[in-house]
Amino acid sequence: MIQFQCDYNEGCAQEILDLLAKTNMEQHVGYGEDAHCEKARQLIRQACEAPDADVHFLVGGTQANATVISSILRAHQGVIAASTGHIAVHETGAIEHGGHKVLALPATNGKITARQIKDCITAHYQEDGPEHTVQPGMVYISYPTEYGTLYSRRELEEINHVCHEYQIPLFIDGARLGYGLTSQASDIMLPQLARLADVFYIGGTKQGALFGEAVVIQSPSLKKDFRYFIKQGGGMLAKGRLLGIQFEALMTDNLYFRLARHANEMAARLREALLHQGFEEAVPSPTNQLFFILPNEELERLEQHFILSPWSHPDETHTVVRFCTSWATKPENVQALISAIQHKS
Amino acid sequence: MIQFQCDYNEGCAQEILDLLAKTNMEQHVGYGEDAHCEKARQLIRQACEAPDADVHFLVGGTQANATVISSILRAHQGVIAASTGHIAVHETGAIEHGGHKVLALPATNGKITARQIKDCITAHYQEDGPEHTVQPGMVYISYPTEYGTLYSRRELEEINHVCHEYQIPLFIDGARLGYGLTSQASDIMLPQLARLADVFYIGGTKQGALFGEAVVIQSPSLKKDFRYFIKQGGGMLAKGRLLGIQFEALMTDNLYFRLARHANEMAARLREALLHQGFEEAVPSPTNQLFFILPNEELERLEQHFILSPWSHPDETHTVVRFCTSWATKPENVQALISAIQHKS
Amino acid sequence: MIQFQCDYNEGCAQEILDLLAKTNMEQHVGYGEDAHCEKARQLIRQACEAPDADVHFLVGGTQANATVISSILRAHQGVIAASTGHIAVHETGAIEHGGHKVLALPATNGKITARQIKDCITAHYQEDGPEHTVQPGMVYISYPTEYGTLYSRRELEEINHVCHEYQIPLFIDGARLGYGLTSQASDIMLPQLARLADVFYIGGTKQGALFGEAVVIQSPSLKKDFRYFIKQGGGMLAKGRLLGIQFEALMTDNLYFRLARHANEMAARLREALLHQGFEEAVPSPTNQLFFILPNEELERLEQHFILSPWSHPDETHTVVRFCTSWATKPENVQALISAIQHKS
Amino acid sequence: MIQFQCDYNEGCAQEILDLLAKTNMEQHVGYGEDAHCEKARQLIRQACEAPDADVHFLVGGTQANATVISSILRAHQGVIAASTGHIAVHETGAIEHGGHKVLALPATNGKITARQIKDCITAHYQEDGPEHTVQPGMVYISYPTEYGTLYSRRELEEINHVCHEYQIPLFIDGARLGYGLTSQASDIMLPQLARLADVFYIGGTKQGALFGEAVVIQSPSLKKDFRYFIKQGGGMLAKGRLLGIQFEALMTDNLYFRLARHANEMAARLREALLHQGFEEAVPSPTNQLFFILPNEELERLEQHFILSPWSHPDETHTVVRFCTSWATKPENVQALISAIQHKS
Repeated sequence: MIQFQCDYNEGCAQEILDLLAKTNMEQHVGYGEDAHCEKARQLIRQACEAPDADVHFLVGGTQANATVISSILRAHQGVIAASTGHIAVHETGAIEHGGHKVLALPATNGKITARQIKDCITAHYQEDGPEHTVQPGMVYISYPTEYGTLYSRRELEEINHVCHEYQIPLFIDGARLGYGLTSQASDIMLPQLARLADVFYIGGTKQGALFGEAVVIQSPSLKKDFRYFIKQGGGMLAKGRLLGIQFEALMTDNLYFRLARHANEMAARLREALLHQGFEEAVPSPTNQLFFILPNEELERLEQHFILSPWSHPDETHTVVRFCTSWATKPENVQALISAIQHKS
Repeated sequence: MIQFQCDYNEGCAQEILDLLAKTNMEQHVGYGEDAHCEKARQLIRQACEAPDADVHFLVGGTQANATVISSILRAHQGVIAASTGHIAVHETGAIEHGGHKVLALPATNGKITARQIKDCITAHYQEDGPEHTVQPGMVYISYPTEYGTLYSRRELEEINHVCHEYQIPLFIDGARLGYGLTSQASDIMLPQLARLADVFYIGGTKQGALFGEAVVIQSPSLKKDFRYFIKQGGGMLAKGRLLGIQFEALMTDNLYFRLARHANEMAARLREALLHQGFEEAVPSPTNQLFFILPNEELERLEQHFILSPWSHPDETHTVVRFCTSWATKPENVQALISAIQHKS
Repeated sequence: MIQFQCDYNEGCAQEILDLLAKTNMEQHVGYGEDAHCEKARQLIRQACEAPDADVHFLVGGTQANATVISSILRAHQGVIAASTGHIAVHETGAIEHGGHKVLALPATNGKITARQIKDCITAHYQEDGPEHTVQPGMVYISYPTEYGTLYSRRELEEINHVCHEYQIPLFIDGARLGYGLTSQASDIMLPQLARLADVFYIGGTKQGALFGEAVVIQSPSLKKDFRYFIKQGGGMLAKGRLLGIQFEALMTDNLYFRLARHANEMAARLREALLHQGFEEAVPSPTNQLFFILPNEELERLEQHFILSPWSHPDETHTVVRFCTSWATKPENVQALISAIQHKS
Repeated sequence: MIQFQCDYNEGCAQEILDLLAKTNMEQHVGYGEDAHCEKARQLIRQACEAPDADVHFLVGGTQANATVISSILRAHQGVIAASTGHIAVHETGAIEHGGHKVLALPATNGKITARQIKDCITAHYQEDGPEHTVQPGMVYISYPTEYGTLYSRRELEEINHVCHEYQIPLFIDGARLGYGLTSQASDIMLPQLARLADVFYIGGTKQGALFGEAVVIQSPSLKKDFRYFIKQGGGMLAKGRLLGIQFEALMTDNLYFRLARHANEMAARLREALLHQGFEEAVPSPTNQLFFILPNEELERLEQHFILSPWSHPDETHTVVRFCTSWATKPENVQALISAIQHKS
């Protein structure tokens, strides 16, 4: 069985494995204060053109989201997000467990607009007695979204503008940041995105690392005491060096983006084949996740040789299926899947 | 200015005031363990025909909701509720502050159906990896709803049936319970409602008491340690006697229901006048809260002499207005409002 | 049985009852925004000589403590308190339920010192990796303490000084504030105390009101959004007028302090008798709570006619007993208790 | 500089690194449901002689503690622990952030007794109004403790007995479990310890893994829904295989215990040298952590060539210093440290 159901099916990029092996018996202090973490931080600041940014390494996405949000919000505040956002759906209520409501706005292809955000905030303050409802305290968006789609630079600027207007931070979940930035549909680069977000993270887990997310904090007021939140949230890895080493490798020789570009190319090939066979795309995605509407029997046929990810059921005879490529996807496997698709019944 | 904007504009029923004055210098132990609380508990058990029920007195509705829900759910569970439910909208995220997500279902006239609840639960367990999402742990409905509407006995039985099928408790918010049970549209009595809920409360604050909600717990498993939750939630009134005295008065000579019936009669009179003048009802309510769509200029005209509650803005020239009567509403004030309505421009 | 076990055995002062009755059918807006609340706020600001203070009314002490602390601390911070402080012992973990650790310091007669507070804070920051431990975020003390004792003006100034030095707020729990300020042992007046605290409250529940605590916030940064926290914590009384009316009465003609002084006089009489009979005082208290060490048989004898509050058991044959007087304690009851004490076996 | 300040200075055992490299490009499903996790679970069940145990893999210790405790306690309950326990001191209030109080008991050399636990529980229920205080809901101990000391089998049996008597679960933090079980002072084996705990974990992070703790749940009632808690707590590693692979390696050919035994031998050598030089042991530890009282100048001298961990300051001229060995400690480094100690000034 060949697996296309997610982008964390394999271990890690060879460069990372090599550096882990090479440095294995070095002695380092714990908790992210070692030389590899420091070097990785410098490389990330350079890549972001953000010399004053604070960079922290966390183990996973749910943890990164919960930690960042916990560090920003006061108890009476909530976080604005798309109804399809990861924090709204797939984190077992981690944000609520931390005491905060997710103020979910209806999403279009995984995205929300500056207009929606503005309306949400102004509606709150126009209420007769806003204190009876949760105060919007920050905005969370994903780049790319959970449906593989991208905000344009202009859309991000508009969202950034609303956030500044109402003085609430903008947090960008970059679990798949590289897949977004290297997409042909992207019109933004890392330094620009870094300037538009108050805090964001560069996802490693789904992009070639064993695990790890690099949180980049730009706003001075959000930097204070962040390490306390990491520790409290269970995210302070004793052997923090592991995170430093991985991001050191990823940020060297453009590895992070090279891996991402590969995944996008594999996905584009697959997408073309699916469209060519007449399948309908549920969401038009220019990144490494594709969402196509398949007849159930077609899905069953493919599932004889491939593990895919059934996503939802628009009607009784069709399924929205997620096809995922990654940094590790082999071209021959994509070809095998395309062949199977072409022989559709 | 005459006030029709809510059902807590006045103090309390004279009978309560009299009993408070009469018992003022009695000495009692604190925290709800006095003789008045005990008597009120007995009267409530009788009225509910629930001799084994536990009865606890809390100060207000948000507190009662947060306390009951905190006592039932484990950390990974959420509470199913209508998207318009009080806990979903107007409690400043008190449930989330306690660590739990409100699993909001689209409401129709403030109500949700057994079918929706069942679909929500089964969808959760049918997911590939249900542990990535919040587990439905209980159901919360309001009787009457926040829009004044009522569940029929059959609807309640169906919801109760689904809850039992999946072994999750049903909690009924009865902040305005009397207004519901004494409505001409109601086809259920207190003992029947008490049997269908695992836990519910008899609202005092909006029905003639100074404050107070009587939580009635039927399920043995939900009774354990409930007083700890009251105390932790800040709801254990030192002078618990005040709650006992008020419910003792309310449960004597049917006072609670007499007060409620008066409010419904006042509302019915008002509703008839509004309909007769051709105003459209936003939600058909048979209880003490009416929701009518008024042209903005008509609302402004009425607001010269009456305080009303603008609820929402369906379009730029109209406003949904809530008219509220209560146990304390004077017939002459209703008449004055009706006269004003009849002279519409 | 005559009750001396707490200071909330009776209802309320007659002046309050009268004002509640007189205003009962007035129509007011809810949630503390009515004219009585506004008048009470003005009276409190005058009494505190704090024209710019924000004043909010909450129902009870545990609620007030949890709400204030929740409004001040960020998630990684804890509150410094005496190990015997109410929040550390008798609130069923309400502070922890809100997410925060109580950093309990060893108490002497219910009190902690500026030195202890300073050491606690400096020890935190001197750690190698302070982020592994809870950051001290505020200080909580009680005036008078849970053992009836008082901080001197100088002690309060020193604590205030440490708090300002480290820029963390000082919160004074004044559940029995009047009993403290009117004690003959007190060397501070309300306006001075108000200047030394960043936030404190004037307790009503134990001092003549049916219920209610008036939270006074001085620090501008702590004022923001406080009403959200009240609502979220379940403390926003629908009929907020009830709190306004009660504090209006208490703050008129010095009633609050007259009631408190009476309680202290009753306690002083009782204390003298106990000392005269040779009983040892566990804690030297100059306010309305006395803590004496009684032989168990002596306690049993008194308990035939009086309800007292056994507090702890220093050894197998003795019990520390709390005797409590209040605004409502009748001189003849004190005399009866003194007589019983004098006839000790 | 040679580092002896903790047991996570190096990467991981070579066997783990090899297996990670060998399996790197295998495709696996995520979140701990892969074949390596399943195999590791079987090996752990065998080692524990607990065929029915549930085994879950988490990333780190703070996370494991917070997750287990969150899964067990209801909102009004706290966890009994030694005042020196990791959860009481060094997790930045993670337990409180989850809503629960740590009921800290005075520790002796890091340990608490069955008697203390029993007294804590009975004292709670003997209170007049236990609901005003946090209910003891579980017991947490560490084996070995944070001071390297060990509970004897008899002590564990007594604690287990008290827990069963009051029907509260016993949770053993085994972050350094192997160092404890392979100590010459230990009189217990893994299967016996597994039978005495309701839930415990086998620590990997400090014992040769890159990271990872294997939580073993014995009690059926504690097994339910545990994966939800892992996810909610941010502990569900996307590439769960990494945890499976590591524990597969550790549990093969007794590697876990061989690594631990090495550390203990290194520590014993060091301890002997320190005692021989006349240094006083602050806590008598038979495992890999040693706590010795050193004159400050002696510490400074050693710190010229070694990184150690100053722990506390018993007086102005002495420091309690932690010396830590690990699975990775090189004999020549121990010899170098011993030589330095022998040349004490």
